[in-house]
Amino acid sequence: MKNRAAYMTGLNKMEIRDIEMPVLRDRDVLVKLEYVGICGSDVHYLEHGKIGDFIVDGDFILGHECAGTIAEVGSGVQNLKVGDKVALEPGITCGQCEFCKSGRYNLCPDVEFLATPPYHGSLMNYIAFPENMCFKLPENITTKEGALVEPLAVGMHAAIQGNVKLGDSVVILGAGTIGLVTLLACKAYGATEITVVDVLPKRLEYARKLGATATVNALEADVFAEIDKITGKKGMDIVIETAGSARTISQTPYLVKNGGTIVLVGLAPQDIIEFNFAKIMAKEAQIKSVFRYRNIYPTAIKAIAKGIIDISGIVTHEFDFEDSAKAFDHVINNKQDVVKAVIKI
Amino acid sequence: MKNRAAYMTGLNKMEIRDIEMPVLRDRDVLVKLEYVGICGSDVHYLEHGKIGDFIVDGDFILGHECAGTIAEVGSGVQNLKVGDKVALEPGITCGQCEFCKSGRYNLCPDVEFLATPPYHGSLMNYIAFPENMCFKLPENITTKEGALVEPLAVGMHAAIQGNVKLGDSVVILGAGTIGLVTLLACKAYGATEITVVDVLPKRLEYARKLGATATVNALEADVFAEIDKITGKKGMDIVIETAGSARTISQTPYLVKNGGTIVLVGLAPQDIIEFNFAKIMAKEAQIKSVFRYRNIYPTAIKAIAKGIIDISGIVTHEFDFEDSAKAFDHVINNKQDVVKAVIKI
Amino acid sequence: MKNRAAYMTGLNKMEIRDIEMPVLRDRDVLVKLEYVGICGSDVHYLEHGKIGDFIVDGDFILGHECAGTIAEVGSGVQNLKVGDKVALEPGITCGQCEFCKSGRYNLCPDVEFLATPPYHGSLMNYIAFPENMCFKLPENITTKEGALVEPLAVGMHAAIQGNVKLGDSVVILGAGTIGLVTLLACKAYGATEITVVDVLPKRLEYARKLGATATVNALEADVFAEIDKITGKKGMDIVIETAGSARTISQTPYLVKNGGTIVLVGLAPQDIIEFNFAKIMAKEAQIKSVFRYRNIYPTAIKAIAKGIIDISGIVTHEFDFEDSAKAFDHVINNKQDVVKAVIKI
Amino acid sequence: MKNRAAYMTGLNKMEIRDIEMPVLRDRDVLVKLEYVGICGSDVHYLEHGKIGDFIVDGDFILGHECAGTIAEVGSGVQNLKVGDKVALEPGITCGQCEFCKSGRYNLCPDVEFLATPPYHGSLMNYIAFPENMCFKLPENITTKEGALVEPLAVGMHAAIQGNVKLGDSVVILGAGTIGLVTLLACKAYGATEITVVDVLPKRLEYARKLGATATVNALEADVFAEIDKITGKKGMDIVIETAGSARTISQTPYLVKNGGTIVLVGLAPQDIIEFNFAKIMAKEAQIKSVFRYRNIYPTAIKAIAKGIIDISGIVTHEFDFEDSAKAFDHVINNKQDVVKAVIKI
Repeated sequence: MKNRAAYMTGLNKMEIRDIEMPVLRDRDVLVKLEYVGICGSDVHYLEHGKIGDFIVDGDFILGHECAGTIAEVGSGVQNLKVGDKVALEPGITCGQCEFCKSGRYNLCPDVEFLATPPYHGSLMNYIAFPENMCFKLPENITTKEGALVEPLAVGMHAAIQGNVKLGDSVVILGAGTIGLVTLLACKAYGATEITVVDVLPKRLEYARKLGATATVNALEADVFAEIDKITGKKGMDIVIETAGSARTISQTPYLVKNGGTIVLVGLAPQDIIEFNFAKIMAKEAQIKSVFRYRNIYPTAIKAIAKGIIDISGIVTHEFDFEDSAKAFDHVINNKQDVVKAVIKI
Repeated sequence: MKNRAAYMTGLNKMEIRDIEMPVLRDRDVLVKLEYVGICGSDVHYLEHGKIGDFIVDGDFILGHECAGTIAEVGSGVQNLKVGDKVALEPGITCGQCEFCKSGRYNLCPDVEFLATPPYHGSLMNYIAFPENMCFKLPENITTKEGALVEPLAVGMHAAIQGNVKLGDSVVILGAGTIGLVTLLACKAYGATEITVVDVLPKRLEYARKLGATATVNALEADVFAEIDKITGKKGMDIVIETAGSARTISQTPYLVKNGGTIVLVGLAPQDIIEFNFAKIMAKEAQIKSVFRYRNIYPTAIKAIAKGIIDISGIVTHEFDFEDSAKAFDHVINNKQDVVKAVIKI
Repeated sequence: MKNRAAYMTGLNKMEIRDIEMPVLRDRDVLVKLEYVGICGSDVHYLEHGKIGDFIVDGDFILGHECAGTIAEVGSGVQNLKVGDKVALEPGITCGQCEFCKSGRYNLCPDVEFLATPPYHGSLMNYIAFPENMCFKLPENITTKEGALVEPLAVGMHAAIQGNVKLGDSVVILGAGTIGLVTLLACKAYGATEITVVDVLPKRLEYARKLGATATVNALEADVFAEIDKITGKKGMDIVIETAGSARTISQTPYLVKNGGTIVLVGLAPQDIIEFNFAKIMAKEAQIKSVFRYRNIYPTAIKAIAKGIIDISGIVTHEFDFEDSAKAFDHVINNKQDVVKAVIKI
Repeated sequence: MKNRAAYMTGLNKMEIRDIEMPVLRDRDVLVKLEYVGICGSDVHYLEHGKIGDFIVDGDFILGHECAGTIAEVGSGVQNLKVGDKVALEPGITCGQCEFCKSGRYNLCPDVEFLATPPYHGSLMNYIAFPENMCFKLPENITTKEGALVEPLAVGMHAAIQGNVKLGDSVVILGAGTIGLVTLLACKAYGATEITVVDVLPKRLEYARKLGATATVNALEADVFAEIDKITGKKGMDIVIETAGSARTISQTPYLVKNGGTIVLVGLAPQDIIEFNFAKIMAKEAQIKSVFRYRNIYPTAIKAIAKGIIDISGIVTHEFDFEDSAKAFDHVINNKQDVVKAVIKI
């Protein structure tokens, strides 16, 4: 067994290097990675060298959407065995702080998250990972689908934060990767009306293919008027913002129903945004936000296995590990075309 | 029995007039009103003739914080009898729309709310009111306290929306009437640390007297630094904004703990406010809002009766019905001094 | 327009009689009924003259699962019009008691429920009913399906009480009508494993056809062993008891997972049942119960309209209004065969 | 530093022996224990050698209600320092299973709980314990009070499971130690009516002293009639069973209000109990249960520190470490007199 990793060696520079095989601790499994998805955050690190306070310092391995097959197990491993296909949940948390103990481990201040400096990612052949963060994939799920559980989990957490349930109406602002996995999640959680808003016709076409009951092109139509038409002026039960722009975030109070919920998922370039709080208060609406996800992998895997969610539908591009640099290049230069690119290892 | 009401007859003009005795429907009780509190909204109507889309058109009776004694009961009244002291919940809702049926009757679009145009208020001797909106006061609660259940209910709804519970830390921005009843409510719901922020020393003195564990004068100290000091830089479990200014609303993301809750109660003069959503999302904080209240009167009355809440402590001024015009005048001209003024009828 | 009703005139005796056209109040609509389902409670009244404290006194009209078309509207009707297809929610509640106000109107002590003495049912041509209890059916739902919203609502309330959600495992004890609608509801709410237990092969066949992922014939297999096998000895997230027998109710603590939920829907013949509470406590399991339903019709109708629930699949028998007596007769004598019989009016 | 422990060496036999000083791991602190409370489970092990499947095998150290002062800290300890007073939460959980990750760590199957075979207890001078399970006591809380946080946590978990909140009515069956701490907890969570039922006048006297608003001696009065009188025949919002008898468990359905909650805390001698489920279902009541507690220590300590809960009031007996055998002896022979005995070390 020989290990190699794709390193980011500078802005927009990547190279594949030999690395040591990882050392297993008792409760670790050794995973032979098979697919790693390229996330917007990976691309952002490669282009800008940082996201907020997280700064890439020195050569850095990207990638955190990943799945593979177990090649070896540590002495204390109890439930997994060699040959099992697994999806990796990329954030290892402390299990002991008040957030972990109360079930909100995504807020653990000591999380070690793959491809978030100073922790390397998983764009490599072999990784050692704690057993309890490796979720077994049933026969009928491929490791390619397994790698996509990670972005799906964000969409599912958005649906859960919004308490999307059978019969709800939802509008999703933005039909990028996160908007589309949120669409899949809302459908799975029972929303019966899902309108997707974007400015790119191709994205809206994807949305319709993946189950949107209506789409609105914000360049061609008045979003408020369209949502009024769809809801009989009542507003949407849940408004989920995934576009990450000041404009779309500021639209949310006008779209939500009295007593409804806004869920913020997309990060805008600017921190501070003008927002109509008077409308929020007149409607007694609430605003929830999404920071990664928690306790979602097992549910996501079951939903895919049962055919409730077809996650493979979001993959538009596939590259070989050797072509990792090219893969990132393509994604950077074709942002409108690429929904999700994956690297086969 | 003779009935009179204090009419607002123009901006800053009031006069007392004879009116008809109200006609009881089957399920109404006739209440001889004894105390009516003066609310900020009453004052606002008198000074400006409107609040948002609610416009005073013609002569108008103010007042919706009220309690009295039952003088007569309709033929279908079941639980109340002549002589009972009652507090009136001033919003009569339809009981049939989706909001009423799901227990969120404060969002009923057909609510008839006292002293909210086109519905007159209760600054009068006798009012007919549905039995189920009249809540019996036990022996040890006066009708003066009964009239104060209404503002208290707003504070309690704020505490409930924030899910304030035993052991929580809370910061309340603003020590006006609503800030102070929110303080009483948070204490009753078990908050063990309650910091109150305002710019008026006298208000902060009230806050300390009513149970604040700390106060911050925002003119003299750096609010963020003080809250950091109190919470060990963790932030507050719940941040409740009652000051109703763009400045204080925009401070809330900096004060709240990871995973914590912001509750918006105060309406700012401007609708649109600059707000740091990036911070909200990094903390996965949530924002709730308060529109009046629901299902709170029975609990409020029990809390007062048991001495858990001492609501009488917020009354700073009392006037006679005959002096209603003078009462409003005094409130308008002494906003800093008056926490709560009541009119004895 | 001429009105007739099918009266129960004694135990196991029915006859059709002419009755007056109902008088509309302002907010009533006149519904020309098209389908009425036969419920177990209807059959029970016909056979025994009472259910618990509810005793049939004199001639009595059965039927409460019903839908039809609006023939006339009262002067105050706002949202419905002549020609609209509607499903009737059969419990008219007061809208004013603490249960109604807090959104739990199914517990209203003053409910007037169709075909629950002293209130007549709806096995007739025309009924006057409050607009807000008549739920409009979209084009693609027939009034036959509309009549079935009522039993479906019971199953959906069971799923909601159990908080069944995406990825959950559920075992349903009993595959009678309520067991089967509960199965449809659990599937709609996202359960990925649904095991149904009964003793009749035909019922289990229905269950498989309607989406059960496993079935257990309790006469042929050890239920505990089978559930252990399916869950890897972990137990089921949610156990829903619909069979209404002491034996099945007493089985529930053995089937539920640690921290899981038992939902009781079926009423057993005896009030008092031997139950292993030690197991409940060792598992910190909870037990919820179901009394009718609340706030479910709109969601049920949307779920049927979107094809998420195919409720028509439960109808096994259809009769004409003229043959109402024969219909009840058939149901009484073929309890194993009949899942749901409906009467076409 | 010299370490000694009080061993149970057989049924009703105890002796104090010298033991090794414990070895600290990186994140452990060394606690010099000062107070250990005697719990019913300790007594039960001493008298019977087992509780359910937990069997004492060989010499065994009892005690799990404990607090002390930190004498040494491991190299990785971050928040505690030598000299800090701490209360120990006695269950060390894995932090990695589905129960731990979802915040229900009390259900962790791999918990190591003090004085639960095969894990020794804490009736000794020095114990090594993980930092994150040691909760710092503020200046104004003694280690005697600190040792009582453990039983209090059970009562608080009962109140939380019952969702006891401001204004609720509660009846507590049983005024033993757990009944009394549950009373303190319900009062702290805002219950305004708390009735306590027992058969021992002395216990009821304690209950009144600790804040019960009413008490019922079940030997002298009809419990159902008394509760009907107190609640106007409505029943109690929450019924908490702490007596652990078949009789009291079977009474709960008759005492609870429509839509109310029963909380089971006391373990009865027999597993299987006759129970009126028909009444539960007619009331749509729910039954919750209590298995230890979770995430409660910080809240309990704040509530004691603020004077909201006076836990010291439950201590009726205090013994020296040297007299541990005598202490257990006294407790065993004076069950009616002893509410809580503590051992000073």
